Amino acid sequence: MADTAEFIKDLCTPAFVVDIDVVRRNAETMLERFQQLGVQLRPHMKTHKTLECADIMTGGSRRCIAVSTLAEASFYADHGYDDVLYAYPLPFDKVERCARLSERLALFHVLLDNKLALQQLTRRPLQRGKVWRVWMKLDCDNGRAGVLHSTQDALQLARDISETTGVELTGIYAHCGNTYGCKGKEQITAIAQETTTNILQFMERLKAIGIQGPKSSIGSTPSCSHPVPDMAMLSEVHPGNYVFYDVQQSLIGSCRLEDIAVRVVTRVIGHYPHRNQLLVDCGWAALSQDGGGRLPTGYAIIEGHAELKLTSMTQEHGRVEPLSGALDYSQFPLGSTLYLIPHHACATAMMHQVYNVHSKGKIVNTWKVFRGW
Amino acid sequence: MADTAEFIKDLCTPAFVVDIDVVRRNAETMLERFQQLGVQLRPHMKTHKTLECADIMTGGSRRCIAVSTLAEASFYADHGYDDVLYAYPLPFDKVERCARLSERLALFHVLLDNKLALQQLTRRPLQRGKVWRVWMKLDCDNGRAGVLHSTQDALQLARDISETTGVELTGIYAHCGNTYGCKGKEQITAIAQETTTNILQFMERLKAIGIQGPKSSIGSTPSCSHPVPDMAMLSEVHPGNYVFYDVQQSLIGSCRLEDIAVRVVTRVIGHYPHRNQLLVDCGWAALSQDGGGRLPTGYAIIEGHAELKLTSMTQEHGRVEPLSGALDYSQFPLGSTLYLIPHHACATAMMHQVYNVHSKGKIVNTWKVFRGW
Repeated sequence: MADTAEFIKDLCTPAFVVDIDVVRRNAETMLERFQQLGVQLRPHMKTHKTLECADIMTGGSRRCIAVSTLAEASFYADHGYDDVLYAYPLPFDKVERCARLSERLALFHVLLDNKLALQQLTRRPLQRGKVWRVWMKLDCDNGRAGVLHSTQDALQLARDISETTGVELTGIYAHCGNTYGCKGKEQITAIAQETTTNILQFMERLKAIGIQGPKSSIGSTPSCSHPVPDMAMLSEVHPGNYVFYDVQQSLIGSCRLEDIAVRVVTRVIGHYPHRNQLLVDCGWAALSQDGGGRLPTGYAIIEGHAELKLTSMTQEHGRVEPLSGALDYSQFPLGSTLYLIPHHACATAMMHQVYNVHSKGKIVNTWKVFRGW
Repeated sequence: MADTAEFIKDLCTPAFVVDIDVVRRNAETMLERFQQLGVQLRPHMKTHKTLECADIMTGGSRRCIAVSTLAEASFYADHGYDDVLYAYPLPFDKVERCARLSERLALFHVLLDNKLALQQLTRRPLQRGKVWRVWMKLDCDNGRAGVLHSTQDALQLARDISETTGVELTGIYAHCGNTYGCKGKEQITAIAQETTTNILQFMERLKAIGIQGPKSSIGSTPSCSHPVPDMAMLSEVHPGNYVFYDVQQSLIGSCRLEDIAVRVVTRVIGHYPHRNQLLVDCGWAALSQDGGGRLPTGYAIIEGHAELKLTSMTQEHGRVEPLSGALDYSQFPLGSTLYLIPHHACATAMMHQVYNVHSKGKIVNTWKVFRGW
């Protein structure tokens, strides 16, 4: 069990493990990078959803974070965090909960991309002399939430927000999730530049109609891992995944494999020479199905074993086979462990309630994870 | 929030909802089906992992269940369950925990498919006059865990188990997971027949070498939803998913759509006419990525809207578009809810910590879920 093991090799498997030294390095690198650029880092909590990792990402300030669910916002607020941006298109069922957080915290920010959402806010005026702090979501060609940056609608919505009583247009927020289609630094910086240019141009258009106050922020781990100089003109950035990184980020070009802080420890539970396979005790219940098995090594990279592929999974079983030739079972005795480097850390972390935190393989902490909406 | 909503339409979304009437009907149908066949039903808990649903599946007996993780076994044992089969190839890190459960319960069963696992048991003799109750996993051409049914190795392992001091060969266990490749009742019954024939022939071969005691069991929701007459000669069956069913099971032919007990309630959070899409607040964090979006309607079926497709998801967002033509946004106002019928209930249920249980849309209970290994 996690609570009695001294080393990660002794954990009951499957187990999610986090290398605290890599986490600290990733967090410090990002903090320093944007300190040097003079841009506020607002780390996103969606990847890990723990208090301890948030403390590391904020450099201990417990201020200035982004979250993707309102339950996370409440969790962090309950633990002394403030300046929390609920970076999600305001869902109409959660207005009252948002109002209470706005009244309770010094700075609680909501996000929206349409006028009906703005109307929802005006129907619930805040008490205690507070105003709704609103970020407008701008779609800088990412194609998910947001008003299209180039449209008159975007300008009009910004104007509506800034002219509404009890509401303040605090910032303009864009997520450059389209960096996830990139391969290599050159493509990443091209998208980072494009998103930055789009949002900065939008800020200029706002100024031209007399709206000068709002901050600007873009996000995504790829763009913030390779910022372009123009990003220094932004107020904030809001990446999240970088604290763990993963195989996907290494393929995009955001990081090296050695920057990936997380693994799933799994154990060999069966040898099946008649089909040249072994079974491990990690199925999608512990790894997630992210990536769809399309890596050359299947659903994950098996650390130190480039010759192996995690070919398929069911809920609690994983099938491993060699990329070619016959499996040498003597290398993988029953009961021995393998370390899976996940395709997508956000998805794998979601499958675990406890993270086993280690330094050089020695367990130094256990992080409990917060879930829900 | 779940705790204040009276009807599922008022839940904060995304929310996992369970129709208690359908659950009861599915559970009773399965109980009656195998009672009539004279075969013991040992329902598998892996799909739901709750106490309340286990009570329904066991008809209130709290006896005779199968689980896929040892943490589940302990959870049920802690709540008065007994006759628990840990239906998973014995992982060598969990022998001591298994021993304690064996000593504590009247009947705790382990499963194995190799001689090294048997040796692990003999190194930890049970106290309190107990013997290890061992089920041998037989691979009846399913191709996951188990010794191949047709081999001499299988007979030899059964003999080894039955001749080992402190160990009892309690049963032979086969999972016909290959039914998941079926389309329609005819194909399902063909695999059910094949698996049944294989295991019954194996039982005959055991008898021929003087091993008469062990029980026989096969599982899988498809085969147990359409049992063949020969299954009456088995001692037990161990399906699990049937209590919820899902789109995958309906496509296999195990059930009708109206037998599916679970939904994810999601809410419209954005309209994007320029790309003919709307956004909902259900991403893979609430639905799982199961099925890979390969249904004609994408990652799920949107209840009552055969014209819509859940085309893609990120962690907390889902993109919905029409299968053809222009989306009629007036039908889907911002803030309105949609009901997603999951591709795979086991995978979707895993993403939630709380199930909102309803009868005809009125919330009647909240089930808390147990997780871990």
